[in-house]
Amino acid sequence: MQTIKEYVQSNQERFLEELFALLRFPSISADPKYKDDVVKTAEFVAEKLREAGADQVEVCPTAGNPIVYGEKVIDSSLPTVLVYGHYDVQPADPLELWDTPPFEPTVRDGKIYARGSADDKGQFYMHVKAFEYMMRNDALACNIKFMIEGEEEVGSANLGTFVSSNTDRLQNDVIVISDTSMISMDQPSLETGLRGLSYVEVEVTGPNRDLHSGVYGGAVANPATILAKMIASLHDENNHIAIPGFYDDVVDLTAEERAALNEAPFDVEAYKEDLGIAEIWGEAGYTSIERTGIRPTLEVNGMWGGYIGEGAKTVLPSKAHAKISMRLVPNQDSQRITSLFKEHFEKIAPSYVQVTVKPHHGGEPVVTPTDSIAYKAAEKALEEAFGKKPIPTRGGGSIPIVALFEKELGVKTVLLGFGLDSDNLHSPNEKYGIENYLKGIETIPSFFKHFAELSK
Amino acid sequence: MQTIKEYVQSNQERFLEELFALLRFPSISADPKYKDDVVKTAEFVAEKLREAGADQVEVCPTAGNPIVYGEKVIDSSLPTVLVYGHYDVQPADPLELWDTPPFEPTVRDGKIYARGSADDKGQFYMHVKAFEYMMRNDALACNIKFMIEGEEEVGSANLGTFVSSNTDRLQNDVIVISDTSMISMDQPSLETGLRGLSYVEVEVTGPNRDLHSGVYGGAVANPATILAKMIASLHDENNHIAIPGFYDDVVDLTAEERAALNEAPFDVEAYKEDLGIAEIWGEAGYTSIERTGIRPTLEVNGMWGGYIGEGAKTVLPSKAHAKISMRLVPNQDSQRITSLFKEHFEKIAPSYVQVTVKPHHGGEPVVTPTDSIAYKAAEKALEEAFGKKPIPTRGGGSIPIVALFEKELGVKTVLLGFGLDSDNLHSPNEKYGIENYLKGIETIPSFFKHFAELSK
Repeated sequence: MQTIKEYVQSNQERFLEELFALLRFPSISADPKYKDDVVKTAEFVAEKLREAGADQVEVCPTAGNPIVYGEKVIDSSLPTVLVYGHYDVQPADPLELWDTPPFEPTVRDGKIYARGSADDKGQFYMHVKAFEYMMRNDALACNIKFMIEGEEEVGSANLGTFVSSNTDRLQNDVIVISDTSMISMDQPSLETGLRGLSYVEVEVTGPNRDLHSGVYGGAVANPATILAKMIASLHDENNHIAIPGFYDDVVDLTAEERAALNEAPFDVEAYKEDLGIAEIWGEAGYTSIERTGIRPTLEVNGMWGGYIGEGAKTVLPSKAHAKISMRLVPNQDSQRITSLFKEHFEKIAPSYVQVTVKPHHGGEPVVTPTDSIAYKAAEKALEEAFGKKPIPTRGGGSIPIVALFEKELGVKTVLLGFGLDSDNLHSPNEKYGIENYLKGIETIPSFFKHFAELSK
Repeated sequence: MQTIKEYVQSNQERFLEELFALLRFPSISADPKYKDDVVKTAEFVAEKLREAGADQVEVCPTAGNPIVYGEKVIDSSLPTVLVYGHYDVQPADPLELWDTPPFEPTVRDGKIYARGSADDKGQFYMHVKAFEYMMRNDALACNIKFMIEGEEEVGSANLGTFVSSNTDRLQNDVIVISDTSMISMDQPSLETGLRGLSYVEVEVTGPNRDLHSGVYGGAVANPATILAKMIASLHDENNHIAIPGFYDDVVDLTAEERAALNEAPFDVEAYKEDLGIAEIWGEAGYTSIERTGIRPTLEVNGMWGGYIGEGAKTVLPSKAHAKISMRLVPNQDSQRITSLFKEHFEKIAPSYVQVTVKPHHGGEPVVTPTDSIAYKAAEKALEEAFGKKPIPTRGGGSIPIVALFEKELGVKTVLLGFGLDSDNLHSPNEKYGIENYLKGIETIPSFFKHFAELSK
């Protein structure tokens, strides 16, 4: 019998090699041309679950990418933990900004550089390795179920159907997700809220074909200019979102809650230096922590129109496009926000152009309790591993599945994330610290132990 | 001895085949990867000039793409006509909007569909074929010089040096350029002015890397949003250009001149229907003809930032870009306008972002006289060919070389264009009417004859 610390120590090289193998699959869910790689990744994950000791392992087909399921039910009187994660990753472009290839994991300064290293392959795989330890050392204190999906980065469109048609199989007492970040390696934290998401793509059409900007420029509305004006109008001079009704359902925090939130360390100078910006930005009346944690936002994720190649082309484009996403906070509803956006965007379109708004995907905001057994178990496990009690924080990201689980399975989630905000999630040079990875593996069995004990 | 009508009739198939061969070269000057094709195109043009009977034919190297020169000097006491044209073409993208491949000329409804068919291969090649006729039928009434360049679509960067170091060789009495359009096949016209051009590329940089829009969105300025706001501010609510000093040097036309200009036929309903737009757009206080003819404009030719691939990516981009061009009217100066733009754009950039403005290329506006011998000769030639006196119009496009010729060679230009505004210049499905091509070949010898006679 080894302690988890000893086990991690003696197996760390293999733990890294296995993760590297997982990271080499370009399992990009946004682009259909990676479909084969996505399926191969699911099969790899299933194989690793089997090797670690899981039963009933299955690559479950869906209308989209498969979901990998596996479980170890040792005693029906023990509590059950469901581990959720995702093996799909964000697209890697712009490729030219990566220092090393996105799908060839490379270690520099103790960090693993690869697309998906932190989001979420490196994080869910910690659970597979912690499970392996518990199986081989007779230390599994709870029943465990794994559900690793392949469409998180594109809105988990088929997970809802899977969950609602598998409620018995998925029955559990707590869901654990490692897909968020903590403050730092010196200051652990636990996210207690996630923002929802409404993601839309807009198309502005002017003339029915690209035109010569000399012959027609000045006499025909340019859809790129019109789109710019429309986007510009979506935030007012205080950077409030100028869509009527947008804030109607937002639950304002009390002064005490806001004060507590702002106790988390935030060094604005270090933040600016890290990002290379001269000044921070955001909604008037809120701190940076509040802007990303408890306030809804609207961001242009992509924008394009006209000639974007080398050199100069004097064209008045027929069309201009943007991908726009809104992060939502309790008690906003993603479908309602998508409708409000669509209605507003169509309304502000001048008669020179035609506008279409296509919803991409959405998800609901959630708040997780800090007084639950699961939260307390996570708190204890982190304190043991890091020597410091974790601070509760509110995350800016979105994991739409959390709200879905609450609704379908009636279970709350613990967000046991080991990443860092500086991990370049969704960006070139995504990375995950080797220390974060190993420390995560070390923390998880302790969470299981405390959760079982507190559940008694 | 054949008349030109007879000659065109009996050779039209060959004339088309030769043009098709020329159109098959993808001589895109904006993209360096077509450099080889560009050089091959120049060699093809040189060969055709030789075949038609030109002397001193040379593919003249420059720091960029070569210039093709050729001449036939028959009598130093006769006037000399310099034909200028360009064998380079605009990029063909977006390729998916072409009904047939851009570099495989295809005839539909009497039109030749191909990139460069109207701009300018189909138009300058009329002169090569008209010259062939005049040589073979002893009908050359003037000396003739050809200068066909390969960088018109990227600003003719190396033509200035070539012209100023070849002033003797290029000496002439009038420059003829067929690179513009006329009102219709039923109503010939002659352009008497061209707008100048200032073309810039802007880059707006926010954070030093792409960020996760959930983790950072709302707390860091998004360069796509900032660029949209900056572009939106470049036109005021009357669609005047909001750059201080932009209109300072614009020469206003008299009420009489404006009235004369507006006598050209313009059917707004047909215009809207052709372009598929519900409403026209433009600067308050001016007609559509004035907006494209005598007023300066500012157009976004391209705009991009963030994720523009398939599906959804929740990224807050590091950078956003735009290609912006301004069309200038007499007496605006392209360098001054570029400076004004740069100064203004840098000034309106908020401190959250960094902005760079890179000038692409420029050119000066020109007005050509309507009381010159050359204009009168062109008027007579068009009247003979089309049975109707041409209307003078002001073109919206730019041919920067015209101002350069005036300065370096002290010679005015005649804009003997046979295209139509609907030819989809710079757009997918560029076309040129077979009738326009053959009618152009028929008109040109008549211009030479009248120019020689009026010069006596």
